[in-house]
Amino acid sequence: MRSRSMSPDSPIAILDSGIGGLAVVRALQAQLPHERILYFGDTARTPYGWKSAATVGGFVSQIVHYLRGYDPKHVVIGCNTATALAMNAIKKEFPELSLSGIVEPGARAAIEEAGAKRFPLIAIMATEATIWSKAYERAIHRRRHHARLLLRPAPMLVPLVEEARDPGDALVKLALEQYLQPLVQRGADVLILGCTHYTILKPIIRKMVGPTMRLIDSSQKCADDVARRLQTANLLYGGPGNGSLRCFVTDDSPRFRVLATKFLGHEPQPPVLVTPDELYLAGASNAAGRFTG
Amino acid sequence: MRSRSMSPDSPIAILDSGIGGLAVVRALQAQLPHERILYFGDTARTPYGWKSAATVGGFVSQIVHYLRGYDPKHVVIGCNTATALAMNAIKKEFPELSLSGIVEPGARAAIEEAGAKRFPLIAIMATEATIWSKAYERAIHRRRHHARLLLRPAPMLVPLVEEARDPGDALVKLALEQYLQPLVQRGADVLILGCTHYTILKPIIRKMVGPTMRLIDSSQKCADDVARRLQTANLLYGGPGNGSLRCFVTDDSPRFRVLATKFLGHEPQPPVLVTPDELYLAGASNAAGRFTG
Repeated sequence: MRSRSMSPDSPIAILDSGIGGLAVVRALQAQLPHERILYFGDTARTPYGWKSAATVGGFVSQIVHYLRGYDPKHVVIGCNTATALAMNAIKKEFPELSLSGIVEPGARAAIEEAGAKRFPLIAIMATEATIWSKAYERAIHRRRHHARLLLRPAPMLVPLVEEARDPGDALVKLALEQYLQPLVQRGADVLILGCTHYTILKPIIRKMVGPTMRLIDSSQKCADDVARRLQTANLLYGGPGNGSLRCFVTDDSPRFRVLATKFLGHEPQPPVLVTPDELYLAGASNAAGRFTG
Repeated sequence: MRSRSMSPDSPIAILDSGIGGLAVVRALQAQLPHERILYFGDTARTPYGWKSAATVGGFVSQIVHYLRGYDPKHVVIGCNTATALAMNAIKKEFPELSLSGIVEPGARAAIEEAGAKRFPLIAIMATEATIWSKAYERAIHRRRHHARLLLRPAPMLVPLVEEARDPGDALVKLALEQYLQPLVQRGADVLILGCTHYTILKPIIRKMVGPTMRLIDSSQKCADDVARRLQTANLLYGGPGNGSLRCFVTDDSPRFRVLATKFLGHEPQPPVLVTPDELYLAGASNAAGRFTG
């Protein structure tokens, strides 16, 4: 089944636990500058990184319900934790939507980068919930049964990035050293940056792990995958005119503007506030509509 | 006005953004071992520390609605951010409840500790939202107009404690050094630990700031204040029998048990799950009841 309005003119919708998905938006805008993009950041309930699948799945379902009202041509779960915990349930709940996540493209790219090695060592750095979910493990082992994995929950990196610290800050360096050292010592072939926040830290991570370890930026791979999907489906909007970005948030605090500017590389328009109560009601009325309609 | 059932047999209800309020529970249990305590941790939407007053106020209102159903003799907002952002609104919304927070007791204790000094220098380390709210500033200046304040948002400490790192961990030490050094250099007389998570770090903070700076543990002061209020109102439950603790959470992840044990000093009974949707519905039906009844 396809989306209700599968027109090239329709927007692309990207959702995230908060801010990090804007790294996906940035990569997507660089490739597809003419597209209209809707971004939904669940800033009232962020972060998702150590919460249960039931909780995260419920939040993501509400957001997808909401975004569906804008008739998007494609919906992207641009958050590793949300993809890892909720993707399967969301696919079942919204079979009519064109949907993609961020774990599969990253896993695929990691396999490609590992090349012909028979037992490549693939490291994954991500939130606790993403690691616990085994979503990357499954996605990699489905493609390369013999890949060896090194799983590294790195819970301090999201708050460090969100405190808007300079990447040269001593605390950022020490945290990265603690997380990366075992991967370097074990000689990982590939490292998946399995959280969109880590995109911001990529240059310093590159320096720390040295030139031989291949880095997979999940934000970039997710955006590449979306562009490829739209192209295959003949749904790219070719222009004319500039694209646009409209942001929705569940909490409107000063933090959004500061961090959004950092993730996007430019300051976005002020976001539209959709409170958790409004989200709940939108989802409930949709659900009622489905049952009675 | 007083609570519907102001009986010594009724429970004390404590709410928090997640886990930290259990430091208040621990201090309260040490003083009042016979009391029945209900604890509500909003683990699905935690942390509150950089969110807006509108968002945090909405969450806290839902939780108080819910807890009111248990006819508590007293309701404690055992979270600095929630008190700073929501206390005034909650007092107006629930005039019939006996309510207290954690900011006033801490501010009062800081003034007492500052002693006779004409221009004492009082430092406050807290979440960004608590600092931005100016709640501590107001509470202190109302009592001592001439007190000088040093405000120190310390956003990394909550995630460091929640990662369950050892207090001797290098990253914990470095973060504390960064936050505390300016307070030591400026010669603060008193330091308010204005977030319940910091209670866990108190021994290492004590070592770092040296013996002359007075430390105010807001968790302890909040518990002292609750005990005093109940005593004054003749609402202490004197026994016989052991007290109890019943925990409610909005997200049921493995993190709760691990961290709750750390904060309480013993493992609590498994928590009761109350999802955000259930909370919303409880609040909505209460509100409807008030309008139609």
